[in-house]
Amino acid sequence: MSDTFETWRDRLERLRSHKAFELTVITIIVVSALLIGAKTYEEEVSRFQAVMLWLDVAVTVFFLVEILIRMAAERRLRDFFRKGWNIFDFLIVTASLIPMDDSEMVLLARLLRIFRVLRLVSMIPELRMLIAALFKSIPRMGYVVLLMFIIFYIYGALGSFLFASVDEKLWGNISLAMLTLFQVATFESWATAVLYPTMEHYPYAWIYFLTFIFLNAFIFLNMMIGIVLDVMQKESLAIELESGEGEAAELHGLRDDVRELRDQLSRMEALLERQRG
Amino acid sequence: MSDTFETWRDRLERLRSHKAFELTVITIIVVSALLIGAKTYEEEVSRFQAVMLWLDVAVTVFFLVEILIRMAAERRLRDFFRKGWNIFDFLIVTASLIPMDDSEMVLLARLLRIFRVLRLVSMIPELRMLIAALFKSIPRMGYVVLLMFIIFYIYGALGSFLFASVDEKLWGNISLAMLTLFQVATFESWATAVLYPTMEHYPYAWIYFLTFIFLNAFIFLNMMIGIVLDVMQKESLAIELESGEGEAAELHGLRDDVRELRDQLSRMEALLERQRG
Amino acid sequence: MSDTFETWRDRLERLRSHKAFELTVITIIVVSALLIGAKTYEEEVSRFQAVMLWLDVAVTVFFLVEILIRMAAERRLRDFFRKGWNIFDFLIVTASLIPMDDSEMVLLARLLRIFRVLRLVSMIPELRMLIAALFKSIPRMGYVVLLMFIIFYIYGALGSFLFASVDEKLWGNISLAMLTLFQVATFESWATAVLYPTMEHYPYAWIYFLTFIFLNAFIFLNMMIGIVLDVMQKESLAIELESGEGEAAELHGLRDDVRELRDQLSRMEALLERQRG
Amino acid sequence: MSDTFETWRDRLERLRSHKAFELTVITIIVVSALLIGAKTYEEEVSRFQAVMLWLDVAVTVFFLVEILIRMAAERRLRDFFRKGWNIFDFLIVTASLIPMDDSEMVLLARLLRIFRVLRLVSMIPELRMLIAALFKSIPRMGYVVLLMFIIFYIYGALGSFLFASVDEKLWGNISLAMLTLFQVATFESWATAVLYPTMEHYPYAWIYFLTFIFLNAFIFLNMMIGIVLDVMQKESLAIELESGEGEAAELHGLRDDVRELRDQLSRMEALLERQRG
Repeated sequence: MSDTFETWRDRLERLRSHKAFELTVITIIVVSALLIGAKTYEEEVSRFQAVMLWLDVAVTVFFLVEILIRMAAERRLRDFFRKGWNIFDFLIVTASLIPMDDSEMVLLARLLRIFRVLRLVSMIPELRMLIAALFKSIPRMGYVVLLMFIIFYIYGALGSFLFASVDEKLWGNISLAMLTLFQVATFESWATAVLYPTMEHYPYAWIYFLTFIFLNAFIFLNMMIGIVLDVMQKESLAIELESGEGEAAELHGLRDDVRELRDQLSRMEALLERQRG
Repeated sequence: MSDTFETWRDRLERLRSHKAFELTVITIIVVSALLIGAKTYEEEVSRFQAVMLWLDVAVTVFFLVEILIRMAAERRLRDFFRKGWNIFDFLIVTASLIPMDDSEMVLLARLLRIFRVLRLVSMIPELRMLIAALFKSIPRMGYVVLLMFIIFYIYGALGSFLFASVDEKLWGNISLAMLTLFQVATFESWATAVLYPTMEHYPYAWIYFLTFIFLNAFIFLNMMIGIVLDVMQKESLAIELESGEGEAAELHGLRDDVRELRDQLSRMEALLERQRG
Repeated sequence: MSDTFETWRDRLERLRSHKAFELTVITIIVVSALLIGAKTYEEEVSRFQAVMLWLDVAVTVFFLVEILIRMAAERRLRDFFRKGWNIFDFLIVTASLIPMDDSEMVLLARLLRIFRVLRLVSMIPELRMLIAALFKSIPRMGYVVLLMFIIFYIYGALGSFLFASVDEKLWGNISLAMLTLFQVATFESWATAVLYPTMEHYPYAWIYFLTFIFLNAFIFLNMMIGIVLDVMQKESLAIELESGEGEAAELHGLRDDVRELRDQLSRMEALLERQRG
Repeated sequence: MSDTFETWRDRLERLRSHKAFELTVITIIVVSALLIGAKTYEEEVSRFQAVMLWLDVAVTVFFLVEILIRMAAERRLRDFFRKGWNIFDFLIVTASLIPMDDSEMVLLARLLRIFRVLRLVSMIPELRMLIAALFKSIPRMGYVVLLMFIIFYIYGALGSFLFASVDEKLWGNISLAMLTLFQVATFESWATAVLYPTMEHYPYAWIYFLTFIFLNAFIFLNMMIGIVLDVMQKESLAIELESGEGEAAELHGLRDDVRELRDQLSRMEALLERQRG
C-alpha cells in the first residue's frame, strides 16, 4: 500500500517538474486571462454565455487539480506551504472556489478570478526573481516615502487651512488637499486648474506651489541618486573583495617564500660561523 | 542640595534616553498631527470642539514638559542649544506657546501648530540622517540652479517683450512670464494653452518654446549625470584607497623582509671574504 | 570574358567603398526625404506636380542602380544577403518598385516611400551601431515589460468591471480600459479627466488609481536602476580583470625570481656542507 | 613715453584682476538685469522713464569702459580675442552700442540688452566651467538626436498623410505634424486632445501613437544609460590606472631588490666555489 503511494508520489513529482506540464499550466492561465478579458465585451459575451460558463468551470477545475497534484507530489504537506509562492497559488485557487451564486456576490467572484492572472508571475521563474528583487528594495525606500508623506501632510494641512474658501472640492479637507497635491506632484493641470484659480484670490499662492514642487523634486532626485549609489557601492565593494582576495593570497604566498629563504640563510650563516670558529 | 539636583538630572537623563519615552513622544506627535488633520473637516469639528480644545492644550503642555525634561537632563543649558535639531524642536515648541486669542491671529496659531509634525523628523534618527544628506547635496546643485535661473530670466524678459500683447495674463511682466515658463518646463498644457495661442499671432513662436525646452532638458540631464558621476567618483576613490592600503601594507612588509635578507647576505659575504683572506 | 567580369566587379567594389559614392547616396536619401516632406504641403505640391513626379522616378531609379551596384560588387550574391542591413536596404528599395497605379494604392505607395528615410540609418555607421546597441538591450527589458503588461491587464479588467457604468468611452471594455490606464501612466489629464469624474460615483476610486501609479512608478524605477547596475557591474568586472591581470603577471614573475633564489641558496648550502664535511 | 604706457598697463592689469573690480562688474550686471526686468512692468516704467533712460546709458557706458580696461590690460590686443569668453563679452557689449533710435528698432535694441545678463556666466568661473562641461557633452548626444529626428520625420510624414483630413491644424503638413508629435512626446494632452479625436475616425490610431511613444521612451532611456555608463567607464579606468601605477611602482622596486639579492648570491657562490677549488 505504502509502496503504491510512494510510486504515485514519484510519478506526480516527475509530472510536476515536467516541462510540458509547466507549459500547459501557463497556457491555461493565459486562456483564463483571455476569458476574463472577453467578459468585458458585454455584447459578444451574451451570445457565447454558455460556452463562457463551461470554460470558466473547466479552468477552475484544472487549477484545482493542478494544485492538488503539486501538493501530493510533496513528501509532506508542510513542505508545500513552506514556499511563499505556493501559499500565494493556494490562496488564489481556493478563493475562486468559494460558491457565490448570489447575484450581489457575482462581482466579487469576478474580481477574485482576475487575480488568477497573477499565477503567471508564480509560474515563470524570471518574473519570480524580478518580484523578489522588487521586495528587497522596499525597506530602502521606506523612510523616503515616510519623509514625503510628512511633507504631503504638512502642505495638505496648510493648503486646507489657507485655500478651503477658494475651492471646496480641491482643498475642502486634508484628504482632498493631499489628493490635489498628488495631482500637482504629477504636474497634471497643476497650473491651469489649481495654481491660477488660487492665485486670483491669493496672489502669493505661487510660493506655496513652487516650494512644494521644488521640495518634492529635490527629495525624489536625491533618493534616486542615493539608491543607485548605495547599491553600486555594495556591489563594487563585493567585486573589490573578491578580486582582492586572489591577490592577497598571492602576496601571502610570496611572503612565506621569502621567510623560508631567511631560514635557509640563517642555517647557512650558522654553518659559516662554525667553519670560522 | 547639589547631590539631590545631580540625582534628579541623572534620572531625567535616563528617562530621556529610555526607548518608551521616545515612543511616547512619537505617539503624541502623531496624535497632534491627526488633531491638525481632523480640524480641516469643519462639520465634524464643531461637534467635538470642546474635546479638540482640551486635546490641543494637552499636547502643547506635553511638548513643553518634554522639552524641559530634555533641557534639564543636559549638564549645561548651553549643551542643549549646541545641537541644531534641539534648536529646531525648541523653536517649534515655543512658537505654539505664544498666546494668540485674537480672532485674526487664530489662523497664524493654527499654521504654527502644523509645523509640530516636523518634530517627527527630529525624533526618528533615520529621517534626521536623510535630511542631513539632503542638506549636503545643496551646494552641489547651487550653481546649476543659478544657471537655470539666468536662462529663465532671459527667456522671461524675451517672452514679456515679445508676447505681452498676445496674453497679458501669461506674459504681462517678467514675473508672470517666468511663472508661465515654469509651467512650460513642467510640460503642463504648454502646447494647447501656451504655444498654440501664441503661434496664432507669431507663427515662429515655436522656436522660442522649443529652444527653451531643449536647453532646460539638456542642462537638467547633464546636471543629473554630473552629480551621479561626481558622488560615485569620490566613493569609488575612497574604496580604492581603503582596499589599496591593505595591499600596500602587505607590499611594504614584503620589501622590509627582502631588505633584511640583503643585510643577512651582506654579513655572510663579509664572513666568506674574511675566511678567504 | 571572365576576366572582363572580374575587372568590372573590382571597379564596382572600388566605387561602392568610395567616400564620394557614400556621400552621394546619403545626399539622395536626404533629397528623397525632403521630397516626401514637401508632398505634405498640398497647395504647393499641385503647382510643381510634374517636377515632383520626375524627381520621384529619378530617386527610385537611383536607389535601384545603387543597390544593383552593391549586389554586383559582391563576390557571390549570397554574401550580399548575409548582412542584415543589406536585406533591410533591399526590402525598402524593392517595396517602392511595386507598381501601384490604382488610385487606392497610391496611399500605400506613399507610405512605403517614407520608409526610405530609414536608409539613412543603414548608411551612417554611427547610427547602425546605435541601433545594434538598442537591439541588444531588448531582452533585458523583456520580462519587465511582461510584468508591466500583467499589471495593466489586471487593472484593466478590474477597471472595466468596476467603472464601465461611469464612462463607457474610458472603461467600456478591457482594451479601452488599458488605453485609459496608459493615459494615467503618462499622467495626462489623469486627475481632471479620469480620477475626479470616477470619484463622483465611487468615492474610493483614488485607491485604484494611486496603487496603480505607485506600482508602475516603483517597477519602472527599479527596472531603470537594475539595468544601470547590471551593465555597470559587467563592465567594472571586465576592467577589474584586465587591470588585475597585469599585476598578477608581475606578482607571478616575482615569485619565480624568489624560487630561483631558493634554488641558488640550496646549491650554496650543499657546497658549504660539503666543505665542512 | 613707453614707460608711462607700461606703468598704465600694469595698473590696469592689477585693476582687472582685483576682487573688488570683479564684484563691481557682477553688481552692475545684476543691476542691468533688474533694469530689464523692471521695464516689463509697463505702468511703473512710465513714471520713472527718465531715471530708467539715465540708468540704461550709465550701464552701457560702464560695460564699454570695463571691456576697454580689460583690452588695454592685455599685452597685445590679439591676446584678448584668443579667449572665447572675451569674444563673447565683446560681442554682447558692442551689440548694445549700435544706435537704434528708430521706433521700429527699439524692440531689437531691447532684446540685445537682455543678453547682457549672460555676462554673468562669463564673469563667474563656476558657471563658465559648467557651460564648458555642457559643450563637451554635445557630440556624445549628437547621433542620438539625429536618430530621434529621423523617427520624428518618418512619423511626421506618416501622420500628415494619414490624419491630415482629421485635423488640419494638428496634421496639416509635416512641420505641424512634427510639432504635434513633440507635444505627444512631452505627454501634453496627447490622449485627450490628439489621440481620442483621431481614434474617432481611425480606430487603430492608437498603434501609431503607442509605437511612437514606446520607441521614443526606449531610445531616450537607452541613451541616458549609455551616456552614464560611457562617462563612468572612462573615469573608473582613469582611477584604476592611477591607483594601479603606485602599486606597480612598488612591485617593480621589489623585483629590483630581489634581483640585487641574486647578484649578491652569485658573487657569494663564486667565492665558495673558489674556496673549494
